[in-house]
Amino acid sequence: MENPFDDTYFMKKALMEAEAAFNKGEIPVGAVIVIDNKVIGRGHNLTELLNDVTAHAEMQAITAAANFLGGKYLHNCTLYVTLEPCQMCGGALYWSQISNIVYGARDQERGFINLQTKLHPKTSIKGGVMADEAAALMRRFFIERRNLN
Amino acid sequence: MENPFDDTYFMKKALMEAEAAFNKGEIPVGAVIVIDNKVIGRGHNLTELLNDVTAHAEMQAITAAANFLGGKYLHNCTLYVTLEPCQMCGGALYWSQISNIVYGARDQERGFINLQTKLHPKTSIKGGVMADEAAALMRRFFIERRNLN
Repeated sequence: MENPFDDTYFMKKALMEAEAAFNKGEIPVGAVIVIDNKVIGRGHNLTELLNDVTAHAEMQAITAAANFLGGKYLHNCTLYVTLEPCQMCGGALYWSQISNIVYGARDQERGFINLQTKLHPKTSIKGGVMADEAAALMRRFFIERRNLN
Repeated sequence: MENPFDDTYFMKKALMEAEAAFNKGEIPVGAVIVIDNKVIGRGHNLTELLNDVTAHAEMQAITAAANFLGGKYLHNCTLYVTLEPCQMCGGALYWSQISNIVYGARDQERGFINLQTKLHPKTSIKGGVMADEAAALMRRFFIERRNLN
């Protein structure tokens, strides 16, 4: 039988978070953290509403997942995030020792890959899952919300 | 007349925060954020108590200062932090566009300098302010709390 809990399944949940950010006028990035096929943390970008540069989707998901687990390390967990994490989020993921990072669209300018943020050696990375959908949502945001308002 | 509000004055306040962390069994790092000689944000490391890798001193101080200012950018602000910031905190400081970072002791292994975290071009950096005091507190922590308990 096919496993319904594949990367696309959970990235869709991250995209729903990104849409929630979009609807609040925030740059649309969303994230969920999963263990044993269960979402234990979620978040969407709230930097404008909270006036807080630290309120990225990933940061909130990390805090929520650690709270659920009762410990700060995210071993055996997978982060699904619609956009490649930035240095700050990459640095937080380093400390968390998370097992897997799955992102959607690349962020060439501010993403952790080109900026060479160090991740934990235990962490594996996979990119490009539903990248077109994530990038399309970002483009729509910058056209509708930033240029026309 | 001598200006009492020099770097040492504010780094002492950051060290008081670090001592508060020490007394809670946390790795003793403290931070304050200052504008116009006024402390508008403070924080000390709470990663163990909160089970949250994002709870570094600097992150809490950034959130508090932005909350005070009612905006996410920390222009004309100075961060005083007892230990060189990590990648995560460096990444948050990048987003904040903070004007000045003053740190105490170097962190060769996990600090943002050797890990080459990108800061905002508007940000200036000064290190080594009360570095001996900050480093001594760290050493005392690792001797008393981590080896002997």
